[in-house]
Order: sequence, then structure tokens, then C-alpha cells
Amino acid sequence: MAKKLGSEEIKTWVASQSGWKYKGNAIRKEYKFPSFRDSIVFVNRIASIADDLNHHPDIDVRYDKVLLTITTHDSGGVTEKDLSLAGKIDFATSAR
Amino acid sequence: MAKKLGSEEIKTWVASQSGWKYKGNAIRKEYKFPSFRDSIVFVNRIASIADDLNHHPDIDVRYDKVLLTITTHDSGGVTEKDLSLAGKIDFATSAR
Repeated sequence: MAKKLGSEEIKTWVASQSGWKYKGNAIRKEYKFPSFRDSIVFVNRIASIADDLNHHPDIDVRYDKVLLTITTHDSGGVTEKDLSLAGKIDFATSAR
Repeated sequence: MAKKLGSEEIKTWVASQSGWKYKGNAIRKEYKFPSFRDSIVFVNRIASIADDLNHHPDIDVRYDKVLLTITTHDSGGVTEKDLSLAGKIDFATSAR
């Protein structure tokens, strides 16, 4: 089982990233797109990444916005797996 | 602008459907799938329906579950447009 990270460790990571927040034992980021269709394209892109890693974010689609919430339920908090998923998502979406 | 329906009207509709609930000025339904991948296939299916109708549900993906929340923000509640979207989604997904 992945080890739960300490809050200082997570805060340091969040400070080094763009848009991610640490809240309620999870990391969260809201992405804004030009349209609903672009939100759905993004959902498909992150779904592939999530399946590759076998680690799946909560995904809230609000028309042209998508909120991702990432945590490791089995570990009761944020782990390296979560930071890795977040990093891969941002790398993939910035590479568009 | 679509006319907001009365709560009795909405409750009658809900009673005639499977799985839909009326709560917080919106209609909601949770769909359960065999896998995350099936949840994403469903999201794509409803995204096409939503774009056809130019009316878009809130979509919450929780691994193998998808929660849809439908309301007409401009009308401040549930309208015929919402019932129509819900009906088309259930028709399309039952026709799989």
C-alpha cells in the first residue's frame, strides 16, 4: 500500500505546481476550457492516463470546467501515486 | 426561456421513471457500471446527447459510478428541457 504523505510534504509539492490545492485529504485542480466538448476531450485524455496508472481521479464536469480530486482511499490520504497521476495529467494537457 | 415546472409535476415524472430523484431544484440519477472504462463510455454517450440538445448535465464520475444532475439554471429549477434530456439519456443507455 502506498504510504500517506505528510501535510508539509504535500504543501511543498502544491507550491511547486500550478493550480493544485490541498484540501480535505486530497489534491484538487479545476481546469477551464473553451467549451463543453473540450471538457469531454480532456476527460477522455485523463481517463487513459488513469487507466494506464490504474489510479483514478474523481471527475466533476461542469460544462466548460472540470474539477479533479485525487486521493488514495486505501491509504487514507495523499500518496506519491496521487502526485504522479497529477503530474502526468498536467504534462499531457500542457503538451496539447 | 423554458418554464420552471411545479414540484408536483416533477414528482409525478420522477415516480414514472427509474432511478431519478428530485432534490435541490434539480433531478439526479446515479448510474453504476462494471468498470471505470464503462463510466467513461457512458460519459461520451451522454455528452453527444447533451450537445445535440444544447443542454448539459453536471457529471460526477466516481470510478464505476456516474452521477448526473440536471437543472435549467436560467429558469431557476427543473423544466421540460431537463425531463427531455433525462428521458433521452435513459433511452440511449437502455438501448445498449
